[in-house]
Amino acid sequence: MMKETLLPQDLRNLIRRGQWQTPTTGLSPGYVQANLVMLPKSEAFSFLLFCVRNPKPCPILDVLEPGAWEPKIAPGADLRTDLPRYKIYENGEFKEEAFDVGNFVQDDLVSFLFGCSFSFESALLSAGVPVRNLEEDCNVSMYITNRTCIPAGPFSSPLVVSMRPMKREQAIRAIQVTTRFNQTHGAPIHMGSSEEIGIDNIDKPDFGDPVTILPDEIPVFWACGVTTTLAAISANLPRVITHSPGHMFVSDLRDETLTLL
Amino acid sequence: MMKETLLPQDLRNLIRRGQWQTPTTGLSPGYVQANLVMLPKSEAFSFLLFCVRNPKPCPILDVLEPGAWEPKIAPGADLRTDLPRYKIYENGEFKEEAFDVGNFVQDDLVSFLFGCSFSFESALLSAGVPVRNLEEDCNVSMYITNRTCIPAGPFSSPLVVSMRPMKREQAIRAIQVTTRFNQTHGAPIHMGSSEEIGIDNIDKPDFGDPVTILPDEIPVFWACGVTTTLAAISANLPRVITHSPGHMFVSDLRDETLTLL
Repeated sequence: MMKETLLPQDLRNLIRRGQWQTPTTGLSPGYVQANLVMLPKSEAFSFLLFCVRNPKPCPILDVLEPGAWEPKIAPGADLRTDLPRYKIYENGEFKEEAFDVGNFVQDDLVSFLFGCSFSFESALLSAGVPVRNLEEDCNVSMYITNRTCIPAGPFSSPLVVSMRPMKREQAIRAIQVTTRFNQTHGAPIHMGSSEEIGIDNIDKPDFGDPVTILPDEIPVFWACGVTTTLAAISANLPRVITHSPGHMFVSDLRDETLTLL
Repeated sequence: MMKETLLPQDLRNLIRRGQWQTPTTGLSPGYVQANLVMLPKSEAFSFLLFCVRNPKPCPILDVLEPGAWEPKIAPGADLRTDLPRYKIYENGEFKEEAFDVGNFVQDDLVSFLFGCSFSFESALLSAGVPVRNLEEDCNVSMYITNRTCIPAGPFSSPLVVSMRPMKREQAIRAIQVTTRFNQTHGAPIHMGSSEEIGIDNIDKPDFGDPVTILPDEIPVFWACGVTTTLAAISANLPRVITHSPGHMFVSDLRDETLTLL
């Protein structure tokens, strides 16, 4: 069986054994992949509040009790070992990457899992909307905008967006399609004029890779889960752990279960 | 100007001065009315987690910082005085009703506001779906079901539902219409066979009033915000304050702003 079509549980077992350490894009298609944030219980209420106040960039899939590592959306999984790559921040500064964070976690850490735009990309393709980052086999382009999230306690962040270029008619269809995926960022937050949201050079994303924008295409922008990382590290907490970009947690949930309730 | 068409701010001022102490049903039409829960900061994370885990009965509109009483969704309002009637619980037991809770709140209380099905009732009417409780000028029928919410920390509750009877074709339309209102309970959770969700006698609601069900109609059930009250008092906390049923907080938000994002 090709690795690309492994079931989530088998993929997580490979990852746990150190046999898959690269991005999870395109793996276990049809299953929900999630952004991870772990931070101390003392600030968990304020962070959860930040996420509730900013649901488009921070669509909560699961929040674990302090010191618990097995998410409801993936029974048997362990968030300390089952992501291919993690980032560790101390006092708001990036410290190191790790393949396993068992040595970095304490029992006071609370784990948050957030929806990811991977969940709607296959729905876009099915609807005839191009996904340029898949066509060009690279990471989606992400930008820090001039829009600010609603703060909560010590947490604040600009809104980060992901961008997919397409024709105007396709943008209309993309809005319809992604509206249903309200637990994985939902409808776009902006389209066209990238200057209006503070993006000066569309060819220089702040995260991920640049992609080709054809002359008859406009950029379409969705709220992006990287916002949760920026918010988490904004509070200069002693320790914050996140997934490494593109190295997501692969859950047992089907993408389709995250559409409208 | 008739009281029914007062703008939310004017209505809240009347309430604050003690000049409106009855239910808010039908007042300030088109504006979002909200369920209120106030509980101690020490349990606020667990309660917020309960709500996030059970979004259909607990659609969060606003959560205030501890000791803050002015919600973002109604600048200038004061949650201690601007609801017509409150219920005060101590150690999990109902203690008394009050028209003003200024004497009962401490600075460690966190206030939660939740969406309410009032927001979609006018959309149902516009779509030609009858709303029997409006026709019969009574409170909507509410029932405790045999479905349990996902617990969090010390909080647990059965799922409470509200019921509106309608023809089968109207139920299809009602599902479409309320799907858009995903921040005010969204689509129904059940229809027909009330036994299946543990309701033995549809004519004896646990809260609210019974309504007429015509021979060609089925009961359609939506998750109900009363669930948030049952969950809040389930933890036997020293003090919990909620609105009194039907006596909601009237915000400045328009119902339409709470549809799909």
